[in-house]
Amino acid sequence: MASDQRIYRASTTAPVNIAVIKYWGKRDPNLNLPTNDSLSITLSQSDLRTHTTASCSSTYRASTPSDSLLLNGKTEPLTTPRSIVCLRSLRALRSKLESENPELPKLSTYPLRIASSNNFPTAAGLASSAAGFAALIRAIADLYELPQDPRTLSVIARQGSGSACRSLFGGYVAWDAGVREDGLDSCARVVASRSPWPEMRALILVASAAQKDVSSTAGMQTTVKTSGLFRQRLEDVPRRMKEMERAILMRDFETFAEITRRESNSFHATCLDTDPPIFYLNETSKMAIRAVEAMNKEAGMAVATYTFDAGPNCVIYYLEMEWNFIAAKLHVALKGKEGWPKGSMSDLSGLRMGNERVEEGLNSGVSRVIMTSVGEGPISVQDHLIDEHGKPV
Amino acid sequence: MASDQRIYRASTTAPVNIAVIKYWGKRDPNLNLPTNDSLSITLSQSDLRTHTTASCSSTYRASTPSDSLLLNGKTEPLTTPRSIVCLRSLRALRSKLESENPELPKLSTYPLRIASSNNFPTAAGLASSAAGFAALIRAIADLYELPQDPRTLSVIARQGSGSACRSLFGGYVAWDAGVREDGLDSCARVVASRSPWPEMRALILVASAAQKDVSSTAGMQTTVKTSGLFRQRLEDVPRRMKEMERAILMRDFETFAEITRRESNSFHATCLDTDPPIFYLNETSKMAIRAVEAMNKEAGMAVATYTFDAGPNCVIYYLEMEWNFIAAKLHVALKGKEGWPKGSMSDLSGLRMGNERVEEGLNSGVSRVIMTSVGEGPISVQDHLIDEHGKPV
Repeated sequence: MASDQRIYRASTTAPVNIAVIKYWGKRDPNLNLPTNDSLSITLSQSDLRTHTTASCSSTYRASTPSDSLLLNGKTEPLTTPRSIVCLRSLRALRSKLESENPELPKLSTYPLRIASSNNFPTAAGLASSAAGFAALIRAIADLYELPQDPRTLSVIARQGSGSACRSLFGGYVAWDAGVREDGLDSCARVVASRSPWPEMRALILVASAAQKDVSSTAGMQTTVKTSGLFRQRLEDVPRRMKEMERAILMRDFETFAEITRRESNSFHATCLDTDPPIFYLNETSKMAIRAVEAMNKEAGMAVATYTFDAGPNCVIYYLEMEWNFIAAKLHVALKGKEGWPKGSMSDLSGLRMGNERVEEGLNSGVSRVIMTSVGEGPISVQDHLIDEHGKPV
Repeated sequence: MASDQRIYRASTTAPVNIAVIKYWGKRDPNLNLPTNDSLSITLSQSDLRTHTTASCSSTYRASTPSDSLLLNGKTEPLTTPRSIVCLRSLRALRSKLESENPELPKLSTYPLRIASSNNFPTAAGLASSAAGFAALIRAIADLYELPQDPRTLSVIARQGSGSACRSLFGGYVAWDAGVREDGLDSCARVVASRSPWPEMRALILVASAAQKDVSSTAGMQTTVKTSGLFRQRLEDVPRRMKEMERAILMRDFETFAEITRRESNSFHATCLDTDPPIFYLNETSKMAIRAVEAMNKEAGMAVATYTFDAGPNCVIYYLEMEWNFIAAKLHVALKGKEGWPKGSMSDLSGLRMGNERVEEGLNSGVSRVIMTSVGEGPISVQDHLIDEHGKPV
């Protein structure tokens, strides 16, 4: 057989997910095995997505003998331990296919050339690593034409970035902590696809000057080691998971809202109980909480809820039918911000929040707004970030 | 016997106390019975004290037939349920004396006239109610010449304001939660007087614009009702109490410091885990925490620790011998503030903190500082706030 000079390519987009039951704490740091189950909502890729092209070719050996990554136009190492684990697993699966079918090109032996870009600022603290690893794993799996289902791939993605395993699915996604030492049962599972409850919306208030306290990887292990309250959190999560799954299946927003806000607060409470204490919430975060409380109080029901990952950005979940009310309440605080609907809304100005301190706090502390909704899992695309000659486009 | 026209007076000063094991949660809100033991340090009355004169006379019936209170020059009601309970208990004890000894004047039947003043701003969030009720109970007990010991009086003070029971003693004071339904075993106890460990110092950073989140009375009951993590806190406090008592008796500052900071963080964590969440710490509080962490890190040992009550003011405990180091670290951040030592300290400027963000945060967020130390319990004084004619002076 003549030497294979072809450029192989596969491209995918993958979504961000924002957890409503948080992943915080590893029972095995090497394998990214969590101390508890978690559950997230996959967000629409129209607004937040990573686009990744995986490519390989024997011809790459001449210029870049090792695997390479171009992230948002910048060369990044693919040599972090987490990346290496993922690539090794995918190559092993491909290698097995190749050994079973000698007709197949030996892609597993070729250098990988990866190009990836986000449609949102990486540093904004928007779970970019989840989308990034999900896209990487999905694109390479497609490139290698692996027959494994997303659930199996999520075991690989998990080793890249824990929450990435959830980004391999759309809709409402659980990550079961599992009990096995090898982590093979610690993978993602669809609780409900997007379609039974497509009205779910997310309004993300991106906080300005977000100087992150400590990385989540370091922070969560300090919590496990030092927080006394964390033990109670671990006892409470299983019940919360059950109630949350039921709320999603029943489309019960009131219950969904209560569990979501209490779970976020419980998570940040254990951060504060860490020694030394970790603070992710700032004054802007508190004002966002007060704004949601004020809306719910005025509505006399839960029209919105809030959750915060390891940073000050507030993710407000709500149902589409409540948008006019919520928009009216937040308009004075957020008008003019990037991402906030343009136009006067003057007919709604009588509905403003009625708490100037909260309005001013949000107005000065929020840098931009992202309006999005529950979305699909990774999507295979023909728009490649590496051209047919193997060059980045 | 001719009608008794005399003016009876007794005056006392009483101290503030700042807990290192916090009181948060009542098992009986009417009796102010706490869910857990607590432990505080009584602070010097040179810096923080309430001065109270209790007075009674049959002649008061003409002008003010009911009991009256002049607080910091302003007439305040003595008709709050908590005040009424305290006055009723003290009158009952006096009445018993009178019935046992008919020679005694019938003070229990005379209107009380109370005058009280603080040497610090009441609104600064500095445990003024503890000092206030301790002074009230002590002054009336002296006026009535009650034979009861401070421990018994602390049962009465507790019903006025829970933490007031600890202000009836100097030094290091525990408040045992007790188990009785009537609360008679829920009273204060001296762990160690001031003298075995007199080197303990407190530096209070009073935060500006301290808009309090919710009152502690309302807040703690919401925590009891809604926080899942609170249960774990209740389980952890008994062990912490034992370790803290031992640390005080052993003069073990390292252990004292660790328990104090972790206990404060655990308390504020359960506030955050409350639904809706309660935030007492603000950005200034966080900067104070980081400043203490930076000092300890540089010293390679615990030279200071921090604790926060239900507000953003940071109380830094340290030992007198570490003052030069601590002062040097904080001088750039705090110079010029009311209460901070005047003078150049220029010889120490090479020791500054080395974290400009923390320095700037403290400089902009701290309005004044109070430097004080462990102190004595209530002190009987002859300086009366009501003159021999029954008029406020």
